[in-house]
Amino acid sequence: MSYFDAASSAPLHPVARQALHASLDEGWADPARLYREGRRARLLLDAAREAAAEAVGCRPDELSFTTSGTRAVHTGIAGALAGRRRTGSHLIVSAVEHSSVLHGAEAHERAGHPVTEVPVGRGGAVDPGEYARTLRPDTALACLQSANHEVGTVQPVAEVAGVCHQAGVPLLVDAAQSLPWGPLVPEVPDWSLFTASSHKWGGPAGVGLLAVRKGVRFAPPGPVDERESGRAAGFENIPAIVAAAASLRAVHAEAAAEAARLRELTALIRARVPELVPDVEVTGDPELRLPHLVTFSCLYADGESLLHALDRAGFSVSSGSSCTSSTLTPSHVLTAMGVLSEGNVRVSLPAGTAREEVESFLGVLPGAVAGVRRKLDAPAAGAPAAAPPAEGLVVDSLGKRCPLPVIELAKAIGGVPVGGTVTVLADDEAARLDIPAWCAMRGQEYVGEEPAGRGSAYTVRRLS
Amino acid sequence: MSYFDAASSAPLHPVARQALHASLDEGWADPARLYREGRRARLLLDAAREAAAEAVGCRPDELSFTTSGTRAVHTGIAGALAGRRRTGSHLIVSAVEHSSVLHGAEAHERAGHPVTEVPVGRGGAVDPGEYARTLRPDTALACLQSANHEVGTVQPVAEVAGVCHQAGVPLLVDAAQSLPWGPLVPEVPDWSLFTASSHKWGGPAGVGLLAVRKGVRFAPPGPVDERESGRAAGFENIPAIVAAAASLRAVHAEAAAEAARLRELTALIRARVPELVPDVEVTGDPELRLPHLVTFSCLYADGESLLHALDRAGFSVSSGSSCTSSTLTPSHVLTAMGVLSEGNVRVSLPAGTAREEVESFLGVLPGAVAGVRRKLDAPAAGAPAAAPPAEGLVVDSLGKRCPLPVIELAKAIGGVPVGGTVTVLADDEAARLDIPAWCAMRGQEYVGEEPAGRGSAYTVRRLS
Repeated sequence: MSYFDAASSAPLHPVARQALHASLDEGWADPARLYREGRRARLLLDAAREAAAEAVGCRPDELSFTTSGTRAVHTGIAGALAGRRRTGSHLIVSAVEHSSVLHGAEAHERAGHPVTEVPVGRGGAVDPGEYARTLRPDTALACLQSANHEVGTVQPVAEVAGVCHQAGVPLLVDAAQSLPWGPLVPEVPDWSLFTASSHKWGGPAGVGLLAVRKGVRFAPPGPVDERESGRAAGFENIPAIVAAAASLRAVHAEAAAEAARLRELTALIRARVPELVPDVEVTGDPELRLPHLVTFSCLYADGESLLHALDRAGFSVSSGSSCTSSTLTPSHVLTAMGVLSEGNVRVSLPAGTAREEVESFLGVLPGAVAGVRRKLDAPAAGAPAAAPPAEGLVVDSLGKRCPLPVIELAKAIGGVPVGGTVTVLADDEAARLDIPAWCAMRGQEYVGEEPAGRGSAYTVRRLS
Repeated sequence: MSYFDAASSAPLHPVARQALHASLDEGWADPARLYREGRRARLLLDAAREAAAEAVGCRPDELSFTTSGTRAVHTGIAGALAGRRRTGSHLIVSAVEHSSVLHGAEAHERAGHPVTEVPVGRGGAVDPGEYARTLRPDTALACLQSANHEVGTVQPVAEVAGVCHQAGVPLLVDAAQSLPWGPLVPEVPDWSLFTASSHKWGGPAGVGLLAVRKGVRFAPPGPVDERESGRAAGFENIPAIVAAAASLRAVHAEAAAEAARLRELTALIRARVPELVPDVEVTGDPELRLPHLVTFSCLYADGESLLHALDRAGFSVSSGSSCTSSTLTPSHVLTAMGVLSEGNVRVSLPAGTAREEVESFLGVLPGAVAGVRRKLDAPAAGAPAAAPPAEGLVVDSLGKRCPLPVIELAKAIGGVPVGGTVTVLADDEAARLDIPAWCAMRGQEYVGEEPAGRGSAYTVRRLS
């Protein structure tokens, strides 16, 4: 079994396990109490805060432990917005933030406040100039992830932080994916709020980090208590906090060497997958990327079947395809990038992944994709079928799920002459993303989308 | 060392430790994922939910795991209030709820909504009739703890739940202190929402329970995600959840025998402390009480010094005295009960406490109290000093902290004739509680309190 979904949750680091075991006996009492057991717990908590603050690059009194990265993000956004109420309520997020940031933005929007989503390019990165242009006099907070969790693209955080700093707007940096690879500081001196999540670096679940720089106005939302500077109500899970801090230090000590090693392995996947599997799009920035993460999409395959095939072959990966989400919409990240979403596979290697495991994955992948395509009766790679003359062909894919609309388009395109069009009627959300992506990959012209009685009509012109 | 503060946090139960260790290897992956590690994590989570729901007395799909009891309470209150918005926004709480409930009520009040605090008697219990009279047509939610966390008094939850049920008002029961001793059901069939906290029963920190009965309108507050029925956003800490559920079952299996044993030990403390220590008030209901918890207050002693003296002697207890809180006000529970707050000691025995430990505590206590009183130059128990004639004596205790105003009152009372008065000027919040309590204990008449330029003037008439 090879677990290739570290971006979702990393297996527990040995140091985390050790620290957890060691602190179970010392860390269960209330650190607010004056007696011996309480003082011991307080010492552990203080030491963990020192260690984590050093790893983040902030002062210990700027750092609160929350109960998850999600909670850190929700509290960070709501607290910063409330603290800047007098300036305004405009919130800026990138279109490819983690869902916890977007959920925070949605809640803010539902409450009647303005939110701007900054778009990204096909590589997944925001443009700092474009980000700067969204800043307004009433902007209360801006959010930008340090690196994307689905395609691995590293964001221009330093530039955006500088721009925000100049405008006097605090920037919240969700560093959940990058913190395992090193601190934000000194590279990004101008951040205002910082969030991260322990189980992403091999610490236990149940611990998030929220740092709020001195001088940043912050009013914690909802009912609070006296714990964690009033920023995370509820009894602290000190053994988990100790384990999180200890493993973060351990992970950082190994980060440079491990990053270099995993970067080679993901580079291998990036290079080999398009050679091994026909009709594949590798997504994300090829250079400015996380070392351990690579994502690609396979035309004419559905993500869920592909995941199951790889799982049966012993590989655990995730997917941003619509069929693997409960909402049946493709990942918002792939959507914002405008790249193919069908047959999407994210590989994120945990620390210690052996080259052999990656090679074995590359050996298994082509057969898995081919098997899924065969079941879906996908068109063979390359030439379309012989072309009976027809103009303005309409393909009814209503009620059919990704990747079927694209498969039917690919089969139909051979049925019109060069210059002719095929219009696909589809009500699956993924079609909006995947039909233009197919056109780009196949060198056909995407004419556009029009609303139809049910779903949409996507028109494609045959160019070759 | 004897740890006697289980009501604050219980040491980890051996079953919790075992379950935690066992699930670290299986429970770290994302239970929402489709691959093997995710499915394993999901199985663990589902099994833990079944076990915890059985222990609570609810359906598994009614139960969500939160990250603390505090979070369960905050979410429970806010979600129930939001769900009943159309009925009204009136919230009822008892005056002796846990601070997490009162913080929730304060947040609701700050947002402009009506809150009613139901008073308690000197024993610490609400009167169901009085509770019923606070129900209004616009009451959205009522809250009542199952038992008090500071004095151990068991609340008439079944009666209050019945009354609320009849009125169509949901009742949130904070069962944090009583769940270690058994489920709410079948005794209280009519609850609507239920909260509890794992580290109170010897499970790990970082796990709370929130149950919402089917049919109760509930709209989770703030940004949510798809985890835990949308009631607890953020990645689940499955090893801790597994350990919490396993230890709850184990604790319940031992509960009846252990409750009987500890009830004898706390009864011993209740009986012996007033014999061993002069000028003591034992608080809380003598019969309807938690088995493991007993609280008493010592006149002319300050809680902090007493805690330190007991800590040095090897006993860890907590205190509701003003000097042990960061706000320098006495515990809101003691205040609501109108009992003495100075020299307050709460003893809450963890499961397994040996009779010898309790006897040893009773051996140490009188000396500890006497030592603290000596340092404060407290009056000797019994007769006041010789009485020079004086009427309307004024004692200036401004700027002096609990228990000094009461000590100075006790010394001065001998300076006025029977029928004469002593007026104490004090600006320490504890005086408001402790001067009337002293009068009741000493058989003197408490005349009343009037605002003074700084602080208040408390007048006492000498009766004997």
